[in-house]
Amino acid sequence: MHESASKLIEHFSRITPLSDEEIRAIEASLLVKTFPKGSVLLEAGQIATEAYFVLEGCVRQYYLIEGEERIVNFFTEGDWIVAPESMSGGVPARHYLETCEKTRFVVGTAEREQMLYKQFPRFESISRTIMETMLGAQQALTASYHTDTPEERYKKLLERRPDIPQRVPQYQIASYIGVKPESLSRIRKRLAEKSMTNISSAKTQ
Amino acid sequence: MHESASKLIEHFSRITPLSDEEIRAIEASLLVKTFPKGSVLLEAGQIATEAYFVLEGCVRQYYLIEGEERIVNFFTEGDWIVAPESMSGGVPARHYLETCEKTRFVVGTAEREQMLYKQFPRFESISRTIMETMLGAQQALTASYHTDTPEERYKKLLERRPDIPQRVPQYQIASYIGVKPESLSRIRKRLAEKSMTNISSAKTQ
Repeated sequence: MHESASKLIEHFSRITPLSDEEIRAIEASLLVKTFPKGSVLLEAGQIATEAYFVLEGCVRQYYLIEGEERIVNFFTEGDWIVAPESMSGGVPARHYLETCEKTRFVVGTAEREQMLYKQFPRFESISRTIMETMLGAQQALTASYHTDTPEERYKKLLERRPDIPQRVPQYQIASYIGVKPESLSRIRKRLAEKSMTNISSAKTQ
Repeated sequence: MHESASKLIEHFSRITPLSDEEIRAIEASLLVKTFPKGSVLLEAGQIATEAYFVLEGCVRQYYLIEGEERIVNFFTEGDWIVAPESMSGGVPARHYLETCEKTRFVVGTAEREQMLYKQFPRFESISRTIMETMLGAQQALTASYHTDTPEERYKKLLERRPDIPQRVPQYQIASYIGVKPESLSRIRKRLAEKSMTNISSAKTQ
């Protein structure tokens, strides 16, 4: 099996087991693209025509506010990137999508999606489950903006997506947690001191 | 047909036409509840077990930040209220849901939903479409927090949901657009003056 297909099929199979025929249909419909670092996949004002499943790499989503990036999400291996209001609703996007690394995707279009639904109605169920998960994640993101401090946002990022701070520059992490780079340095210093205190108090016990 | 059923069926039929058998299945599975104003449907820390389709009334969603409500959404007739991360993922909710008026809902549970999917796989498609729309709306909400000023948020609310400012107290509108009530008064005054200027300049032309 094609390696890209196998990653996507593995992802689908975790939601619902697939028949050989369904697997062949996915393989046949698969469109894979690779973009170098710094590729802008979508600009504010454009109407999105593609959805992405990240096979390898990293993409950041941001708004441009007075010329400055406000980063709201990072997408890496196994993540979906979709903008239904734009892709299905024809509403211009307000965000940008840009690769932080060389990134390889499975690319979905509305046409390909509809074709798969017609051929295999069970994909509706898979797609519904993915949409539900994404809606939950998006709601959690909204909750985080309202209820977490920047330090809490940083700690959650370290816990849940420890690879991200290794993969992107610190000023992008600062933008994501909603502070200036200097404040992120202070947060990191404070957390480092706390963990040193914890280590030394553990040693003296 | 039961009036509540007819509203929900109308909503589904706009997505995909339904057979008589499907309509009967919906009618049979329908659970309708009515709550007085001030009912708390969900509290932060609880795991959501129900989804709602609003037949009549208004619900606000908020976070409690240092004892103060930060309102993030209002749901009215024809809106869905779901929290998939909590309901399917078992994650405690971080928000509150409270009725702003006496409100009548169709109540969905995971069990009822699964039953309908089994009986009529086509509901997966309807549900996928609803989830896509909700994901789009949630993304737009996130975009609005990052890119719109409070005044822009207020103008959009007036444009898109003109009934809301008539239905809920002004301090809730202020919370929703992210300002203190005094600032909302200033925004309203400014907009009223602008529209007066527009009227008088139109007259003198």
